[in-house]
Amino acid sequence: MGELTEPLPYQAQASRPRVVIVGGGFAGLHAAKGLAKLPVDVTVVDRRNHHTFQPLLYQVALAVLSPADIAQPIRTILRHQPNVQVLMEEVESIDVEERRVGLASGVRLPYDYLVLATGATHSYFGREDWAPLAPGLKSIEDALEIRRRVLLAFELAERQMQEYGWHPPLNFVVIGGGPTGVELAGAISDIAKLYMRHDFRHIDPTKARVLLLDSGPRVLAAYPEDLSAKAEAELTKLGVEVHTGTHVTGMGPGWVEAAGKRIYSVVTLWAAGVQASPLGRLLGAPLDRRGCVLVDDRLNPPGLPEIFVLGDLAHLDQDGREVPGVAQPAMQMGDHVGKVLAADLAGLPRPAFRYFDKGDMATIGRMAAVAKVEWPIKAHWSGLPAWVTWLTVHIFFLIGFRNRISVVAAWVWSYFTFTRGARLITGDQRLPGWQDQVAAGPGAAGDPPQS
Amino acid sequence: MGELTEPLPYQAQASRPRVVIVGGGFAGLHAAKGLAKLPVDVTVVDRRNHHTFQPLLYQVALAVLSPADIAQPIRTILRHQPNVQVLMEEVESIDVEERRVGLASGVRLPYDYLVLATGATHSYFGREDWAPLAPGLKSIEDALEIRRRVLLAFELAERQMQEYGWHPPLNFVVIGGGPTGVELAGAISDIAKLYMRHDFRHIDPTKARVLLLDSGPRVLAAYPEDLSAKAEAELTKLGVEVHTGTHVTGMGPGWVEAAGKRIYSVVTLWAAGVQASPLGRLLGAPLDRRGCVLVDDRLNPPGLPEIFVLGDLAHLDQDGREVPGVAQPAMQMGDHVGKVLAADLAGLPRPAFRYFDKGDMATIGRMAAVAKVEWPIKAHWSGLPAWVTWLTVHIFFLIGFRNRISVVAAWVWSYFTFTRGARLITGDQRLPGWQDQVAAGPGAAGDPPQS
Repeated sequence: MGELTEPLPYQAQASRPRVVIVGGGFAGLHAAKGLAKLPVDVTVVDRRNHHTFQPLLYQVALAVLSPADIAQPIRTILRHQPNVQVLMEEVESIDVEERRVGLASGVRLPYDYLVLATGATHSYFGREDWAPLAPGLKSIEDALEIRRRVLLAFELAERQMQEYGWHPPLNFVVIGGGPTGVELAGAISDIAKLYMRHDFRHIDPTKARVLLLDSGPRVLAAYPEDLSAKAEAELTKLGVEVHTGTHVTGMGPGWVEAAGKRIYSVVTLWAAGVQASPLGRLLGAPLDRRGCVLVDDRLNPPGLPEIFVLGDLAHLDQDGREVPGVAQPAMQMGDHVGKVLAADLAGLPRPAFRYFDKGDMATIGRMAAVAKVEWPIKAHWSGLPAWVTWLTVHIFFLIGFRNRISVVAAWVWSYFTFTRGARLITGDQRLPGWQDQVAAGPGAAGDPPQS
Repeated sequence: MGELTEPLPYQAQASRPRVVIVGGGFAGLHAAKGLAKLPVDVTVVDRRNHHTFQPLLYQVALAVLSPADIAQPIRTILRHQPNVQVLMEEVESIDVEERRVGLASGVRLPYDYLVLATGATHSYFGREDWAPLAPGLKSIEDALEIRRRVLLAFELAERQMQEYGWHPPLNFVVIGGGPTGVELAGAISDIAKLYMRHDFRHIDPTKARVLLLDSGPRVLAAYPEDLSAKAEAELTKLGVEVHTGTHVTGMGPGWVEAAGKRIYSVVTLWAAGVQASPLGRLLGAPLDRRGCVLVDDRLNPPGLPEIFVLGDLAHLDQDGREVPGVAQPAMQMGDHVGKVLAADLAGLPRPAFRYFDKGDMATIGRMAAVAKVEWPIKAHWSGLPAWVTWLTVHIFFLIGFRNRISVVAAWVWSYFTFTRGARLITGDQRLPGWQDQVAAGPGAAGDPPQS
């Protein structure tokens, strides 16, 4: 045991350029795969052992899918690529002069090329004390925490009803009307109104209220106005109460303050803001106000041609508009790194990156989605066609044949039987603010604003 | 919201006998189902929202299956049985005089019949300080903790090797050679030697050592001697080092003391002892030394004909031998409660319970198991025939069509591709004792006893 089964590539083959990729998301993985055939030694560093297919994370949060359906070990994904090693480790510093990445263990990892693709995290706009009250959705752990809270709310209501004959109102408040907020609100409404109808004896889960609050004038602000309107209409049809122009000014365990009113909330979820991963700051390069690193059309920060910043961490302007922080550009940027390094190794000029926008989609609920299609045709779709497109595209991009089969099976099962396969509550069995609402007694919770 | 959608059965229909079932395991679920057609009102109380199919829990621990494959909400399983309500709540006291169950909320739940089926938990034989060092396997949470530790050990070894060129030896120590210990040891050996071979660049996972320690003279002590010998031979073939007659006398983070020697251990697992759930003590009835409630052949403790104790919590002697604490007798006892209550309601004498033993099985690893078959033929099987029987029986008894499909798919996939679908590390990324072993430096760990 413990013998060196292969030489450390970045030590033993020092003649080959050493590429360090930080982050195993869409951008990092595509960068690693794009380097498969180049004479370089690649180290992928991620603090987690798994790649997460983020577009389906909300389905783990709402008990449709299991974590393993949408996550896979990074080293398993890259197992057949011999020039890649994977290191589960935290990056703490970057020395751009010496070209070394400082790891939590104290080890400094030298690089010839650095690919930084550590993505984004939640932003509470300086109100970090809101984080435990209103979890966001970025990781498997986040998804399991949301699942725990949503399922627990129904269990506690049923228990309270059985034991005392009343329960605090089941208001679920989702803050932020972007794609994640819309997905979460629609999915909570679905599970309450369609998937748990026959499971309770004392509460009526279909009477749960789902409130989607957004400070802006419309949901899905990054989409064309007609699709925002369609999305709002579809949300309303699913029973979600959409409150645009509603700014959240305060929050506590069991309540949210918005539009001058206190809304009681059994579960509050945060989908209002993202900020760049703090690793972007380590480069000393110019950042935008969300902390994203400004890059040129070769994906380099100014004056650092050996460093590539990709995906949600990069701020790239193209045709006067910022390339959005979603999966597609991240994948394309990852792929582009391979082309640039191939050019470098061949002594050719570096090709410029251009984001090819095939469109964008947001799912809303059972048989409801909106899609802005840019390629191969230009179109705005909503309802069933958008939903079918969404399903197809997401299955196609899931990593691994097993996961595709497993997700399709879970979807077909869930669709036809109106049950959800992963309704497990694990961990802590308390809900923040629940006891306060119970102690306040019947009627104290008041009514949330009517839509 | 909040209206009473159905009357509280035990309040509104006081003329029907109220049956309270505590515990949603095999015994409790079978008891609830057996009461489906009787004019009684049933309340199933469990502190978890889900039933866990315990025989496959070790496959969650070793990343073959996802938690949702083997667990389902109790209220979903019983959703179509209108005389059942499910309460997720902790039981704190039982008043056998007043016939009330005291809940954590302070509410007291009246019963006419009480079914107590809360199972068993780990016993560290008074060394509760060992619990965080060597987790056992009883719940989904336990399984995820074991999965986290086992997978993390390989990741940390790879990291240590990459960064410093050596790593502490990958010794996995399983304490206890009963069915759970044998399953865990075989499954760790399988994942290390077969399922992760191509994933690491710096360590050779096939060189991990798995040690199974048992203080008794043979593994699977409850099985016939020939099957114990077969099991030990199959374990050895899988690469597990079996040490019988080896008593564990001490434990710390990263090591186990046994047979006067300190064995370094990156992950220590506990499968050495079980004790009855503490709820058995609340009856004031006679207990055996593991805390199991002594019951007669009507499954009642002495003098308490309205109370049934079932499954692992019950101590029942039949033909001079104790009925074992496994799934089959638990199910049969659950079924029997329905027969007894039907007799009571009809004014007939209560039928006696008799455990019908169809046999018992333990799985060891890929294509290895032992089976003591009692019905329809009497036989001792090992190897492939036992393993195929084991697979078939476990698929048959899994609750829910969806879970059967999902488990079969995961098994087929895993079997043919040599990958495991659920290799996720979530939660804390530290391993108890790892830093101590690293700090001690190469060679300090010494060698575990040779088999």
